[in-house]
Amino acid sequence: MSKYPASLLEALRAEPEMKLSERATKDASWWPEDAPKNKKAAEKRMEQLAEELSELQERLFAASVAGDGAPAVLLILQGMDTAGKGGIVRHVLGMLDPQGVEHHAFKAPTKEEAAHDFLWRITKQLPAGGLVGVFDRSHYEDVLVAKVKGFAKPEVIESRYGKIVDFEKQLVEQDIHPIKVMLHISREEQYERLSERLDREDKHWKYSPGDVDDRLLWDDFQAAYEVAVNRTNNQSSPWNIIPADQKWKARLCIAELLLATLERITPDWPEAAFDVKAEKARLEAAK
Amino acid sequence: MSKYPASLLEALRAEPEMKLSERATKDASWWPEDAPKNKKAAEKRMEQLAEELSELQERLFAASVAGDGAPAVLLILQGMDTAGKGGIVRHVLGMLDPQGVEHHAFKAPTKEEAAHDFLWRITKQLPAGGLVGVFDRSHYEDVLVAKVKGFAKPEVIESRYGKIVDFEKQLVEQDIHPIKVMLHISREEQYERLSERLDREDKHWKYSPGDVDDRLLWDDFQAAYEVAVNRTNNQSSPWNIIPADQKWKARLCIAELLLATLERITPDWPEAAFDVKAEKARLEAAK
Repeated sequence: MSKYPASLLEALRAEPEMKLSERATKDASWWPEDAPKNKKAAEKRMEQLAEELSELQERLFAASVAGDGAPAVLLILQGMDTAGKGGIVRHVLGMLDPQGVEHHAFKAPTKEEAAHDFLWRITKQLPAGGLVGVFDRSHYEDVLVAKVKGFAKPEVIESRYGKIVDFEKQLVEQDIHPIKVMLHISREEQYERLSERLDREDKHWKYSPGDVDDRLLWDDFQAAYEVAVNRTNNQSSPWNIIPADQKWKARLCIAELLLATLERITPDWPEAAFDVKAEKARLEAAK
Repeated sequence: MSKYPASLLEALRAEPEMKLSERATKDASWWPEDAPKNKKAAEKRMEQLAEELSELQERLFAASVAGDGAPAVLLILQGMDTAGKGGIVRHVLGMLDPQGVEHHAFKAPTKEEAAHDFLWRITKQLPAGGLVGVFDRSHYEDVLVAKVKGFAKPEVIESRYGKIVDFEKQLVEQDIHPIKVMLHISREEQYERLSERLDREDKHWKYSPGDVDDRLLWDDFQAAYEVAVNRTNNQSSPWNIIPADQKWKARLCIAELLLATLERITPDWPEAAFDVKAEKARLEAAK
């Protein structure tokens, strides 16, 4: 069982009327006393988490095989370019069995997607029962980049917050449990990461000139995130603001969030849907 | 780079007119001299493989982002119940970045699928460029279970071998590179594994009474596998018969096959699609 999740998870939770400028990206003062103090301690905790996550994930998956419907997890990853979404998938979701993970990265909408309501393409990618779904970007782009770049009229953007709240409420009713995460990096850290992508030939593919375009709109994006989080933050589908300047901290936080969610929703091992004794006899007869 | 794949990979390759009864499931006499001798040595090699696979997979994925089309891998897993397909996904594919892995388990066809040609549902799940696709069962079920259980007429089954050969030829032309794998277990080992599934409550979900039904048809299934492999085995899309009574051996073999394929098909890091110097200047201006 978890050792120190409560205080860490509480620290991650977005408070009502959260102000991003007051949330840590690196500063350690908010980091709970009982959480791992450094990278090495975090790695040790990650090993423990890997084991616990692995068992819970298998049990979640088993529930879906049993056939009576099973809950699902939906990890929603948002953040500025270079915030570390890919690294979370690689290092945290990589701890799970690929059979039980469904990953989807949302890009700019296709023509067909744009011709539908903004939640249409999202709905199509929802995880089946028993799975851990991961959205790398999501419907939140439609109140973030769409707002900052003016891809939709202000009144359309305005209407979307309520639609998102209703949509996510439905998700929970369908037993799909969102973990909403904003990877919060500082402007300075983004500069370092973009520099690295430009300096290293094996990182060029991760860079796009659009990254600097968006960086020039940094304050607008931060403001849009703040509004989006505050307007869609609620008990059944809360936001978590993850300090992401240090990758080891961000990864640990997400792993803890996953564990806490799985602990909450994962049913017991399903009962056998067959007569165990009779099957044992059949197997012996076919020895 | 790989240390001893050549002799191991050669040993795995199905020879023309292969006889399953002559292929090892456990017997060590065929195991190459220079391959790891035991579980511990294999684990060490697996650590090395994890690193090499990880870099190659990232490069493969990068090629797809660059946009000019990228190759894909398609690992096709076949084998009797309990042969270890799930374990391969968990422990071997689990070594890769989930962003670059697309897993699909084929069950009994739905009504809609059955109303189409048998390759229709397969085509829909083909991996995009840059990805490692994994099929847990595949179009081969349509010449295996379909043959043994008589779900299709003999002449229909007969026509499918050639269709599969043509289909897989097309895959290679599309730059999708199949790794066809039969996990070959002994009847005795299957008994042990089914027993365990019946004995342990946390394994019940993996058991289905159909497993014993199929076990009663063991020889028919082996014969169907032999025909399927021999009729669809060729240079561009060869079969590999993996001795699967010992899980560590099977996992090592698949990891080596994956590495050899990735080494063969993965292009270099893509060139930057932008002016690096100009972008550096833009980033400095936005510091």
